[in-house]
Amino acid sequence: MIKILVDCFGGDHSPEANIDGALAALRQFPDLQVILTGDEVVLGAKLAERQYDKERAEVVHAPQVIGCDERPTDVIRMKRDSSMMKAIMMLRDRDDIAAMVSTGSTGALVTGALVRIGRLRGIIRPAFCPLLPTMSGGIVGICDSGANVEVTPAHLRQFAIMASLYMENVYGVSSPRTALLNVGKEAGKGDGIRQEAYTLLQETPDVHFVGNMESRELLTGFYDVVVCDGFSGNVLVKSVEGTALELLKKLKRDIFSRTVYKVGALLMKRMFEEEKAFMNYQNYGGSVLLGTSKVVVKGHGSSKAVAVCKCIEQAYRMETSGLNPKIEAAIAKYEHYEE
Amino acid sequence: MIKILVDCFGGDHSPEANIDGALAALRQFPDLQVILTGDEVVLGAKLAERQYDKERAEVVHAPQVIGCDERPTDVIRMKRDSSMMKAIMMLRDRDDIAAMVSTGSTGALVTGALVRIGRLRGIIRPAFCPLLPTMSGGIVGICDSGANVEVTPAHLRQFAIMASLYMENVYGVSSPRTALLNVGKEAGKGDGIRQEAYTLLQETPDVHFVGNMESRELLTGFYDVVVCDGFSGNVLVKSVEGTALELLKKLKRDIFSRTVYKVGALLMKRMFEEEKAFMNYQNYGGSVLLGTSKVVVKGHGSSKAVAVCKCIEQAYRMETSGLNPKIEAAIAKYEHYEE
Repeated sequence: MIKILVDCFGGDHSPEANIDGALAALRQFPDLQVILTGDEVVLGAKLAERQYDKERAEVVHAPQVIGCDERPTDVIRMKRDSSMMKAIMMLRDRDDIAAMVSTGSTGALVTGALVRIGRLRGIIRPAFCPLLPTMSGGIVGICDSGANVEVTPAHLRQFAIMASLYMENVYGVSSPRTALLNVGKEAGKGDGIRQEAYTLLQETPDVHFVGNMESRELLTGFYDVVVCDGFSGNVLVKSVEGTALELLKKLKRDIFSRTVYKVGALLMKRMFEEEKAFMNYQNYGGSVLLGTSKVVVKGHGSSKAVAVCKCIEQAYRMETSGLNPKIEAAIAKYEHYEE
Repeated sequence: MIKILVDCFGGDHSPEANIDGALAALRQFPDLQVILTGDEVVLGAKLAERQYDKERAEVVHAPQVIGCDERPTDVIRMKRDSSMMKAIMMLRDRDDIAAMVSTGSTGALVTGALVRIGRLRGIIRPAFCPLLPTMSGGIVGICDSGANVEVTPAHLRQFAIMASLYMENVYGVSSPRTALLNVGKEAGKGDGIRQEAYTLLQETPDVHFVGNMESRELLTGFYDVVVCDGFSGNVLVKSVEGTALELLKKLKRDIFSRTVYKVGALLMKRMFEEEKAFMNYQNYGGSVLLGTSKVVVKGHGSSKAVAVCKCIEQAYRMETSGLNPKIEAAIAKYEHYEE
């Protein structure tokens, strides 16, 4: 049995989306067991309305609610009975539990995971690795996308090693083509951190380093992993999402501006639906946190059931593929990293 | 007469696009005079094929060619007879010349402008400010987008002042809504530089500061100016361009996959052409360099004549609106900035 905790509160569609996502995952994986954290009265009532294998779903009471503006450090200290902190503590304390999934506050989750769960041996800083679809029908992982706004070249090398192993073990991408996000393609571009990271990555046999990448090329399908600091990674991921969303909205508005366009769009209805699904990040799962000693997956705050189910699937595959021991083994091959 | 230098070499469509752009600008502004730099034999032959007001176009011979991989510092020292350096030196030396436009190497242009032309009084670092179209039909300026990969809070404040004055004086945006690019909207997000810049911007009456902006919102039309370091600004602008381009390519490919889609698209032909024009950065001019003591505009390397003409128009309007004296006056109001 693979046991995965699902933090059922904190998302825009909580707890329904989290519950339905968890039950969908149960149907997908016969050896999966889910532990739902949150208010047991609310969760119990919602579960009573649903059909599921009662042997494989458990509720753990966690009545406290985390406010929007609460500081991560306060959450850790003061909100031990919140659905997120309960999950974090259970993940830390129980060897039989493999992973957790949360759609709650990113800051609280990162801080909680770092302070309470800890890092894999040799890892300086855990990092997020969300995925985006590429135009060649594949996916690209962006690491880091927000856990570390400041980084060193050594961090960037570790992000590359972790994300490469993730893409290989969880998504079957062999020898993932890994690029460094930069302001130009030529070696020597960017600040000192980028220049040094470029050299370090060239000296890292565990990473198939293909050089610098400009953000313009992210979706081309030429790359499987893009390594960056959490600030520019965050800018990158959100600007792709925002541009796609705004363009689709504009397209829709323009279609409704003339009857002949509406007729044309009717003929292309299926195609537009496919484009919409293609650019919908709900279909690509969450942002896994790489480098923590147990598996933590962060779902988008706006996750619906399908996205939560995808997050649980990611956590399941990270655990069953033995990703974390492989990361530790790869990291151990390299010299001591300075903090 | 407003005299503007046009560097006619260095772009993908040089020199034709640069010549045609310059001649188009002449037709637009009766008091404009252009000085074209480059190989006089080539330029002379191209001009002989074209109709234009010969009184208002002059060629200055500059036969040297700048290679793709040449270091900016080498260009400045060794390529004084290149079309770009010739323009830079003439801009520096001649009081009657107002501005220059180039589609050549960004690095060489920034370094050349800094070292040979110099900064406005009080300006620590010049910064690029390209424009993107928003979904509400307006434009948004992004400053900096690549001239400075590392910045301080004081730099960011100056970028905000310069870009606000640019949007107001050249595009008629009154009291431009100015945001700080960050990883979250709440105050206190991001690294120390962002946190300090946030406070500084709140204390800057010359800037209508509206808080942090996540990259997801760039195209919404809620903002007129976005301030950022050159690294993340570069990532932002290029990822918007790349996402729009890749999506439009995908749409086109998908349309051709089925006959019924082709029929639908035929009905929507004009709409698709408008979308394409909307996302075509050629229609929004170049990336002006704010903060140099004379006006410098950088056109995209892929600029066609329409884009070069837009760049000349930007340079013309920057000069005739008296932007630079206004920037100096605004900057002088604030305390001494640390370098």
